[in-house]
Amino acid sequence: MVYLTRVEHFNAAHRLFNKNWDDEKNFSVFGKCSNPNWHGHNYELHVTVKGEPSPDTGYIFNAKALGKIVQETIIDKVDHRNLNLEVDFLKDNFTSAENFAIAIWKELQPHIEQHGAQLHAIKLYETPRIYVEYFG
Amino acid sequence: MVYLTRVEHFNAAHRLFNKNWDDEKNFSVFGKCSNPNWHGHNYELHVTVKGEPSPDTGYIFNAKALGKIVQETIIDKVDHRNLNLEVDFLKDNFTSAENFAIAIWKELQPHIEQHGAQLHAIKLYETPRIYVEYFG
Amino acid sequence: MVYLTRVEHFNAAHRLFNKNWDDEKNFSVFGKCSNPNWHGHNYELHVTVKGEPSPDTGYIFNAKALGKIVQETIIDKVDHRNLNLEVDFLKDNFTSAENFAIAIWKELQPHIEQHGAQLHAIKLYETPRIYVEYFG
Amino acid sequence: MVYLTRVEHFNAAHRLFNKNWDDEKNFSVFGKCSNPNWHGHNYELHVTVKGEPSPDTGYIFNAKALGKIVQETIIDKVDHRNLNLEVDFLKDNFTSAENFAIAIWKELQPHIEQHGAQLHAIKLYETPRIYVEYFG
Amino acid sequence: MVYLTRVEHFNAAHRLFNKNWDDEKNFSVFGKCSNPNWHGHNYELHVTVKGEPSPDTGYIFNAKALGKIVQETIIDKVDHRNLNLEVDFLKDNFTSAENFAIAIWKELQPHIEQHGAQLHAIKLYETPRIYVEYFG
Amino acid sequence: MVYLTRVEHFNAAHRLFNKNWDDEKNFSVFGKCSNPNWHGHNYELHVTVKGEPSPDTGYIFNAKALGKIVQETIIDKVDHRNLNLEVDFLKDNFTSAENFAIAIWKELQPHIEQHGAQLHAIKLYETPRIYVEYFG
Repeated sequence: MVYLTRVEHFNAAHRLFNKNWDDEKNFSVFGKCSNPNWHGHNYELHVTVKGEPSPDTGYIFNAKALGKIVQETIIDKVDHRNLNLEVDFLKDNFTSAENFAIAIWKELQPHIEQHGAQLHAIKLYETPRIYVEYFG
Repeated sequence: MVYLTRVEHFNAAHRLFNKNWDDEKNFSVFGKCSNPNWHGHNYELHVTVKGEPSPDTGYIFNAKALGKIVQETIIDKVDHRNLNLEVDFLKDNFTSAENFAIAIWKELQPHIEQHGAQLHAIKLYETPRIYVEYFG
Repeated sequence: MVYLTRVEHFNAAHRLFNKNWDDEKNFSVFGKCSNPNWHGHNYELHVTVKGEPSPDTGYIFNAKALGKIVQETIIDKVDHRNLNLEVDFLKDNFTSAENFAIAIWKELQPHIEQHGAQLHAIKLYETPRIYVEYFG
Repeated sequence: MVYLTRVEHFNAAHRLFNKNWDDEKNFSVFGKCSNPNWHGHNYELHVTVKGEPSPDTGYIFNAKALGKIVQETIIDKVDHRNLNLEVDFLKDNFTSAENFAIAIWKELQPHIEQHGAQLHAIKLYETPRIYVEYFG
Repeated sequence: MVYLTRVEHFNAAHRLFNKNWDDEKNFSVFGKCSNPNWHGHNYELHVTVKGEPSPDTGYIFNAKALGKIVQETIIDKVDHRNLNLEVDFLKDNFTSAENFAIAIWKELQPHIEQHGAQLHAIKLYETPRIYVEYFG
Repeated sequence: MVYLTRVEHFNAAHRLFNKNWDDEKNFSVFGKCSNPNWHGHNYELHVTVKGEPSPDTGYIFNAKALGKIVQETIIDKVDHRNLNLEVDFLKDNFTSAENFAIAIWKELQPHIEQHGAQLHAIKLYETPRIYVEYFG
C-alpha cells in the first residue's frame, strides 16, 4: 500500500459563531474568530489517497486526475468564497477547521472511489500554525 | 548600515471593488476578488528597519521592541478583521496588497522614528505566491 | 475522530553527553553535539490532540486554549533556556530530541486530559532536517 | 516507541512511459511527464526509523549514522542522475514517485536493520505539492 | 513606487557543459551537473514588476494578468521540458541559473511593457539552497 | 550583473549581554537573550555574490566552490559552537545577529575576492521570524 498526497491552496472568508448564543457568549468562546464582519484564511489542503501501484503505470492514482477532482469538487466551490454563506456542503454547519475537513472528506470520497481509488486522509491548514486531519 | 527584519502574521477578510463601478465591471477587473460576500487571507508581514549597531548592545533596534510596535500599531487593528469595514487607516482606500503595504508604512514610520530608527521596507505576502514591497 | 495540531516555536541551548563517559568517548558517539560549551536550536513543536467536534462549537478543542496550555506548561520553561541545566522535567535525562519529545508528552498529557481532550502526538523538529514523533 | 526522521535532498531527471505503448498512448496517460527528452525534479526524501531511546545515549538511532547510510545507499546513486537510465535499483521499473519510494525502502531496510534499528516510513516529495509515503 | 511579485513553479531537465571541452574537462568544472544523461530541478520563479497603484484599482498590475503572461511566455515553454534541447530562447546558451534568469527577463520584458508596466526583477530558485537574481 | 545566492545552515549557542552592566540591567535590555546559561539557534545563512556570467561556463561563480569557501571559512568555525566563547572572529564582540552578519562579511570577503568575484550580501536568519542583511 502506497499513499499519494496532492496539495492545493485556496482562500476564503468565514466566522465562527453559534446562532443560539448572543454576541457576548460567542466572543467569550470563539474570541476574534466570531467577528460578525468576518475574517479569512489562505487554506492549504492535502488530499491523500492510497492503493497499490498499477503494473501499467506505476501510479496508484493519476495525480493530474486527482488534482482535477479536487479542483472541481472542492476548490471551485470554496476559493474566494464566504464559507458560512456560499458553500452548499457547509450549510447549517460550524465552519471550524474540524468540520470543514470532515465536509471535504464527504464531498470527495464518492468521486475518488468512482475512479477506483481509496481516500485516506484530509489534512487542512487553516494557518501555518494550526491544522487538522481526518481519516474518515 | 545593517537591515533588521521582523516577520509577523495575521489574517483578515477583504474584497476588491471600485464603488463607482457596477458588479459586472468589478468582476471583469477583479474577478473572484470582488466577491460581495468577502474572501480572506493569512497575511505575512515583514517590517525592515535599518541603522548601525549600537556600541552598547550590538543591536540596530531591539527586535522585541520592534515586535511590540508592530503589534500595537498594525496587528491589533487588522488581525481577524474586515479590512474594508473595520480598519481606520484603510478607510476610503482599495484594500489591494499594494495600498495595504503603503498604508502600513504610513502607520508605522512615525512610531519607528520616535524610537530613533529608520523604517526601510514593508513586505507583505497576501498569499504564498503573491507579495508586494514598499520602500517609502 | 479528528486530529487538531498547533505549532509552536522556541529556542534553547543544550549538549549531548553521557556523564559516565570521558570527553573522547562522548565525542566519538555524539560528535559536535557533545561540545562542552553548548550549542543550540530553534525548535518547532507540533502538539496534536484528538476528539470529536463538539455540537456546540465545531471544535474538538479550542486552539487558543491549547496554545495557552502549551505556552504555560512547556514554552515558558524551555524557551531561551539551557535544556541540560534549567529544565526541571529534563533533569537527569539526556536532552536528545527523542527524550525531549517523551518528556513534553508527560508534562502536557495531564493538562490536556484535564480539559476533556486526548493528547495524540508530539512532533519535535530539532533542525529543519531532523524531527522526532511520539504517540504515548 | 519513538520515530526519528531525517530529511535529505537530491535532484534527478526522469520520464514516465510504458514501453509497450506508443507515444500517443503514453502522452494521453502521463501527459508532459512522458516527454522523451526528459524532465526533472528536486526530490525531498524523509527517512523515518523507530525504536526505543537507548539508556546510554537517549537516541533511538544516531542521526548522523542514519544520514551516512542514506547518503551512501541512496543519494550517491540518484543525485544528479537520470532515474530511468542510471539507477540500478529502479531498472525495469516505472520511475513514478510511488515505485521510487518502494524501491528506496527495499534498498535502505537491510542497512537500517543491520544497525539494529527498524525502518518505519519513506516519504518522498516529487514537487512541493505532490508526495508519496510507504510503510513497507 | 510599489513592487509586486508573483511566484510560479515548473520543473525541467538540463545539463551544464561546454561543447568545446571534452567530458573530463566538463566534469572537472561542472561536476555532476555535466552528467550527459541529464538531471533536473523543480524551479521556483519570482517575477517582480514595479509601478504606482492605479487610482481605479489599487493595483500596480493585475496579478492574474501577470500570471497569464508568465504562464504563456515562460512556463508553457519550459515546464516538463529539457532546457538544453527544447527551449527556443535558451538555444546556443549554457543553461546555468544565471543565463536562464537573463533569458527569462528578455522574454518577459516586452510583454510586461506592452501592458504598461515595468519589469523589475527575476529571481530563480534552482534548488531550495541556490538562487539567482537579475535586474536587467 | 547577476546575483547568485547560496544558503547554508548551522546551529550554535550564544547569549547577549554587556559585560559593563550588571545582570539586572542586562535582563532589562536583552530579556531572556541574556540568560547566563545560554540559549541557541538554527541559523540560516544566505551568501550572495555578484558578477557577469562567464562566456565559458554561464556561471558568475561556481556554486560548489562558493559552498566550499563558506563551509571552510564560516560553517566549520561556528557550527555546534558557542558564539561567545569559541569563535575567533566574534571575539570581544556582541553576538547580535547584526554584528554576526558584519563579522561573516569581513571573514568571507577576502576569500571571495581571491576567486575573482564580488561579495554582495550576507543575510542571516536567527529565527524564522528575525533576520538581518548586510551589504558591506
